[in-house]
Amino acid sequence: MSDQIKFLLSEDQMPKAWYNLAADLPVPLPAVLHPGTLQPVGPDDLAPLFPMALIQQEVSTERYIDIPEPVRQIFRQWRPAPLYRARRLEQALGTPAKIYYKYEGVSPAGSHKPNTAIPQAWFNREAGIRKLTTETGAGQWGTSLSFAGALFGIEVQVFQVRVSYDQKPYRRAVMETYGAQCVASPSNLTQSGRAILAQRPDHPGSLGIAISEAVELAAQREDTKYALGSVLNHVLLHQTIIGEEAIAQLEMAGDDPDVVVGCTGGGSNFAGIAFPFLGLQLRGGASAKKRRIVAVEPAACPSLTRGRYAYDFGDTAHLTPLTKMHTLGSTFTPPGFHAGGLRYHGMAPMVSHLKELGLIEATAYHQNACFEAGVTFARAEGIVPAPEANHAVKGAIEEALRCKREGRSEVILFNLCGHGHFDMQAYSDYFAGKLQDLNYDESELAMALAGLPSVPA
Amino acid sequence: MSDQIKFLLSEDQMPKAWYNLAADLPVPLPAVLHPGTLQPVGPDDLAPLFPMALIQQEVSTERYIDIPEPVRQIFRQWRPAPLYRARRLEQALGTPAKIYYKYEGVSPAGSHKPNTAIPQAWFNREAGIRKLTTETGAGQWGTSLSFAGALFGIEVQVFQVRVSYDQKPYRRAVMETYGAQCVASPSNLTQSGRAILAQRPDHPGSLGIAISEAVELAAQREDTKYALGSVLNHVLLHQTIIGEEAIAQLEMAGDDPDVVVGCTGGGSNFAGIAFPFLGLQLRGGASAKKRRIVAVEPAACPSLTRGRYAYDFGDTAHLTPLTKMHTLGSTFTPPGFHAGGLRYHGMAPMVSHLKELGLIEATAYHQNACFEAGVTFARAEGIVPAPEANHAVKGAIEEALRCKREGRSEVILFNLCGHGHFDMQAYSDYFAGKLQDLNYDESELAMALAGLPSVPA
Repeated sequence: MSDQIKFLLSEDQMPKAWYNLAADLPVPLPAVLHPGTLQPVGPDDLAPLFPMALIQQEVSTERYIDIPEPVRQIFRQWRPAPLYRARRLEQALGTPAKIYYKYEGVSPAGSHKPNTAIPQAWFNREAGIRKLTTETGAGQWGTSLSFAGALFGIEVQVFQVRVSYDQKPYRRAVMETYGAQCVASPSNLTQSGRAILAQRPDHPGSLGIAISEAVELAAQREDTKYALGSVLNHVLLHQTIIGEEAIAQLEMAGDDPDVVVGCTGGGSNFAGIAFPFLGLQLRGGASAKKRRIVAVEPAACPSLTRGRYAYDFGDTAHLTPLTKMHTLGSTFTPPGFHAGGLRYHGMAPMVSHLKELGLIEATAYHQNACFEAGVTFARAEGIVPAPEANHAVKGAIEEALRCKREGRSEVILFNLCGHGHFDMQAYSDYFAGKLQDLNYDESELAMALAGLPSVPA
Repeated sequence: MSDQIKFLLSEDQMPKAWYNLAADLPVPLPAVLHPGTLQPVGPDDLAPLFPMALIQQEVSTERYIDIPEPVRQIFRQWRPAPLYRARRLEQALGTPAKIYYKYEGVSPAGSHKPNTAIPQAWFNREAGIRKLTTETGAGQWGTSLSFAGALFGIEVQVFQVRVSYDQKPYRRAVMETYGAQCVASPSNLTQSGRAILAQRPDHPGSLGIAISEAVELAAQREDTKYALGSVLNHVLLHQTIIGEEAIAQLEMAGDDPDVVVGCTGGGSNFAGIAFPFLGLQLRGGASAKKRRIVAVEPAACPSLTRGRYAYDFGDTAHLTPLTKMHTLGSTFTPPGFHAGGLRYHGMAPMVSHLKELGLIEATAYHQNACFEAGVTFARAEGIVPAPEANHAVKGAIEEALRCKREGRSEVILFNLCGHGHFDMQAYSDYFAGKLQDLNYDESELAMALAGLPSVPA
């Protein structure tokens, strides 16, 4: 059908395995280092925080890792997720390009995050864990882990970055609806939180601080583990179901993308859409189609475009291992722009590695331009994107307008990782002209970079 | 598959026609009366407000009315909508009943309302109309018409009941994202609004008042018409796509409902799920399966359970025709409970007629009980229902618990007409113990009923 806009897979076609890009990397990932010894960590070092099944996924080089059937059973509620051809957006832009988007907002939590929250909760329950702690920015991850916790009877405690906790009270209400406990970070519940509050009682928080708090609590109890919503290899792995489905759906559509676009905060939704396509290229050898893979990040927190590729901590209190990544420095506090899910000082080590290898591109936009793109998208396609997703929308629209200038009918695929229903205050502010294109503090960045740990080569 | 939870139709199986219950009614609907002459109205009397195609649907007794292909093309973005088996809810309740729910929150606007917003906007555009006015309560209808307006390039002006306008600012932000204009009602923009404000400047508004304002503006201009989100026959007709799909999906599931449950404000989502099943029964004659059809309404605005079956106006300023319906009186102002979409003084004439004929049941619940049911549902099924939909959830859970007491494994179907993403303040209030089980003012009801127009038999 020539006017088809939706490409759906049957439940039988839902991927049965996650794709592990580590199996096909031309150069292996740099080692992860112990925060005390600076020596490479082994699985046992991570055991206080994660169940062994997830640690094994973290270090695995197997190409495919089976998705447990009970996890697939839950996924069936909303997966396979739809792939859409954005015909009305193409028309509105007057572009000869074909624009496709994979829509992850169909999950009950409204984003791609349940793709990893469900398996993380399941593997933890299999290991006998009764409580999970975590951090959240805008709240999409906290919402998703709360949802997963409700399904498996696991208690969930969420540390939400204070600026988002204050900006988005309705996300908290959703977490509470799922039965989770949500506290603003920095909090008085942890040593790391109290140390920050002692210095600055009105600290707006950051993902780095919230991670410190969640990790600190999890390490104290046998029956409690920690869950991370992005950055780690096993989290990126779980998100590859997005790209695996998209490959099959574009095949149905009879198209093959020239450009794949995703937004990047910690890197997980970007990895989800991009890694399976990268895998095709890496396995295909010299004859494989080379697609442009574009990461879009906020100009106010530009780890990939302005950060340093260096060993750094994942958190502010330096409780986590060190990974080599593009980082703005673990003490860097991004300004309070609305895409709270993208306010992280570092980038997933695997995404950073790809950038260093020249396998992906990165670009950065300010928030007003992203909201403008999101409104254009909403008026054409009906779906109101999350502020994070607006970065991908902006990236895709820029590519489509380039195609228009160049008279090319390229195929553009982007990941619409979530809807913006809980972010309407940001849209209100945008319409009222109250959104500022916030810039980070250059001297704070310089200081944070100067404070990077020194690691022997 | 014994553990199947999702029942999806292919796009080809999307209904090609709406089902018109008027064709199968054992007793025809009472006539609609002109507000001036009290004589039955003809199509021309309605022409200032609606395009002729919709007026014809309003009075049609054809059993099936074709859904235009351009409307179906837009529906393809999210329809056919999923039918779910609520296995985890069944387990949580420990009921032997099977619970199914049709989920209409998958539309970009988040509710069933686009089912009629899209065709209404399309038929208006076909008639050359450039602007639509309408009313909205919680905002689901206003959002949906704004969405439809964006798709067809029709200007949309929404009068939102002030109590909801204040309670739910994010719904307004969505309407603005779609490019619509949203004003609080009563407003200063109309004579009807100004008259109310003169009496009571802090009037909380009502759907009846908002309708008056929207109708007043639409009647003033050739290129402007009025769109109603519920109550009218053609609106209920458009919603029958819900039940038509559900019949096919339950056939896939190998089940046939014993009880069909929907929430009722104006009656449209209830009609959508119920009428096709009623049609099966009415056409089947004496041998047809008799299903219980249960309408659930708010105890604070109980038109079906406490209203009078009488001729009344649809609006407060008495600009609309008179219809025979269950009504609390057009001057009745319901208290400001959270299910704003159910705060209407009257009930759809066709739903009222069915109640009089004994073909449906009605019951009413207070809001705390409904939110409790909604939280139980969310923790089991992951989807956070709209406050309106919580009434249907409550009704279905009550039926499931009855089955548990009676040891019956009946099949229960309910319509989950929308998600609650824009209603999280209500959930916050519920958790904080701040939600009151509001009661209407008995003397106000008595006065409103005493003021019903007297119509010669």
